[in-house]
Amino acid sequence: MYHTKLAIVGGGAAGLTAAIYAAREKLDAVLIDDYPGGQILQASLVDNYPGLPQISGEELGEALFQHAQEKGAEFLEYRVTAIQKQENGFLLTLDDGMETETVQAQSVIYAAGCHHLLLGIQGEQRLAGHGVSYCASCDAAFYQDQTVAVIGGGNTALGDALLLARMAKTVYLIHRRDAFRASAELVEAVGHTENIQMILHTIPLEICGEASVTGIRLRDRETQTEQILQTDGIFVAVGMEPDTAMISDSVRCDETGYIIAGEDGVTSCPGFFAAGDIRTKQLRQVITAAADGANCVKSAESYLQTKG
Amino acid sequence: MYHTKLAIVGGGAAGLTAAIYAAREKLDAVLIDDYPGGQILQASLVDNYPGLPQISGEELGEALFQHAQEKGAEFLEYRVTAIQKQENGFLLTLDDGMETETVQAQSVIYAAGCHHLLLGIQGEQRLAGHGVSYCASCDAAFYQDQTVAVIGGGNTALGDALLLARMAKTVYLIHRRDAFRASAELVEAVGHTENIQMILHTIPLEICGEASVTGIRLRDRETQTEQILQTDGIFVAVGMEPDTAMISDSVRCDETGYIIAGEDGVTSCPGFFAAGDIRTKQLRQVITAAADGANCVKSAESYLQTKG
Repeated sequence: MYHTKLAIVGGGAAGLTAAIYAAREKLDAVLIDDYPGGQILQASLVDNYPGLPQISGEELGEALFQHAQEKGAEFLEYRVTAIQKQENGFLLTLDDGMETETVQAQSVIYAAGCHHLLLGIQGEQRLAGHGVSYCASCDAAFYQDQTVAVIGGGNTALGDALLLARMAKTVYLIHRRDAFRASAELVEAVGHTENIQMILHTIPLEICGEASVTGIRLRDRETQTEQILQTDGIFVAVGMEPDTAMISDSVRCDETGYIIAGEDGVTSCPGFFAAGDIRTKQLRQVITAAADGANCVKSAESYLQTKG
Repeated sequence: MYHTKLAIVGGGAAGLTAAIYAAREKLDAVLIDDYPGGQILQASLVDNYPGLPQISGEELGEALFQHAQEKGAEFLEYRVTAIQKQENGFLLTLDDGMETETVQAQSVIYAAGCHHLLLGIQGEQRLAGHGVSYCASCDAAFYQDQTVAVIGGGNTALGDALLLARMAKTVYLIHRRDAFRASAELVEAVGHTENIQMILHTIPLEICGEASVTGIRLRDRETQTEQILQTDGIFVAVGMEPDTAMISDSVRCDETGYIIAGEDGVTSCPGFFAAGDIRTKQLRQVITAAADGANCVKSAESYLQTKG
């Protein structure tokens, strides 16, 4: 059983920044994550973290982790499986796949982030890891001179398509609407990339293949016609969902599952602060997640002072 | 006369991040500052910008500026001397010391920052960045096991003293009055902290040292006696002032002059957004300023979309 004033749950940009700030403030704190670095680790290229242009997600995640380590931040390499509100704080249950551990914390900064949404169609789960991928920067290199399809219409989908176009022979970009919601810059870049073929107002129905992906069955929403598109790989980029199932009983969340909190991270539960993609906010970016981490340490300090 | 959809006023971390985001979004925007880089340029060492540990303020300012330039951001190297609200936007008057220029902007991100109030005593400006600091959360970590003095009697000063007491050997808290105007909670915490020594009804006369701070000359206002107190660092916390004089007629500010705005930067004046230290917020740091810049571009884009 560990005792700490502040448990930071999640080692993405928000959690690691909280760890940096807490360590600099000599606050008794520990960051819990079985694999620190967070979602950015999966980004092939991050170009909007101010001051570090054209950096790979892996390098940026590593830079944040190193920074926290240099400052003397403490880490517990476990997954948090439960958080219980108690009279004088929180009891966290951890698991590293081999054994469990518990942490008694006076306050929590919850920065567990989001996970990828699934298409929810036939063949998807069966072929996950066998041609179906949720991380272009992880898997793009396997598709040299092959044919791939990207599903989605946001920044992630278009970024994935551009990345894949640099190695695959042909990239199909499949989107259910007529227009992309990605940034103008990305839409323009995709338009200028010859080996990206857009397939609009079209939904995927089934992923085909026995041992691995061979194609995807699609339906055109205008003509209602169906076709099977032959492809070697399918990259799903249809959005994210916050990882709030564990705490939704004790902390107020909005209708889509995000923890209701402002920039100070203060939630409906005293002593429990939310940082990064997991809270209600207009812009989910590495830079705004990092700012959240700093703000939550400030809020946690004020809270801990009132507790003496 | 320039015409632009978005004028970004101020080239600190907030303004430069706004320029990076606007350029990436292919938004017609221009950043106006006679010397981009902002307050950070004055910091000898910044150690709390996540991912870039142990960087000089000058290097960090330059990195942000370079990033914006690489993305194709446009700059006007002028000082803004007036902003007038017009029917369809804003008219900005600029000056570069030689000639004036005007910019007609549909929207404004105002990121002009704050300036620290100075003690106005001998040695202060000469030793700024060489033992004289205006930001404890930036610089406290450099004074491990050393002796420091904090000047001031408000929440910032007492918060700084508590923070410094966790790493410095001795913290002198020097205040001109007999009582602190900080919150009771902070006053109590300071009273319970053994290595904080209060020096009340005392004013600083001179900061001593050649290459760096060695001490501070003080006068007791009751006995009129003078002494030189030996110290390695001096943290001046006698207040900040936002640079809002120019716009306080058209935008709602709080009683201390900060523009009233949340994390989205939205102010009482449609189309006019506030980013960075100049707005009401709990934590004024490079990382939170940068997040503001990104958020304000998002808000400005939404605003401009409604204007067609």
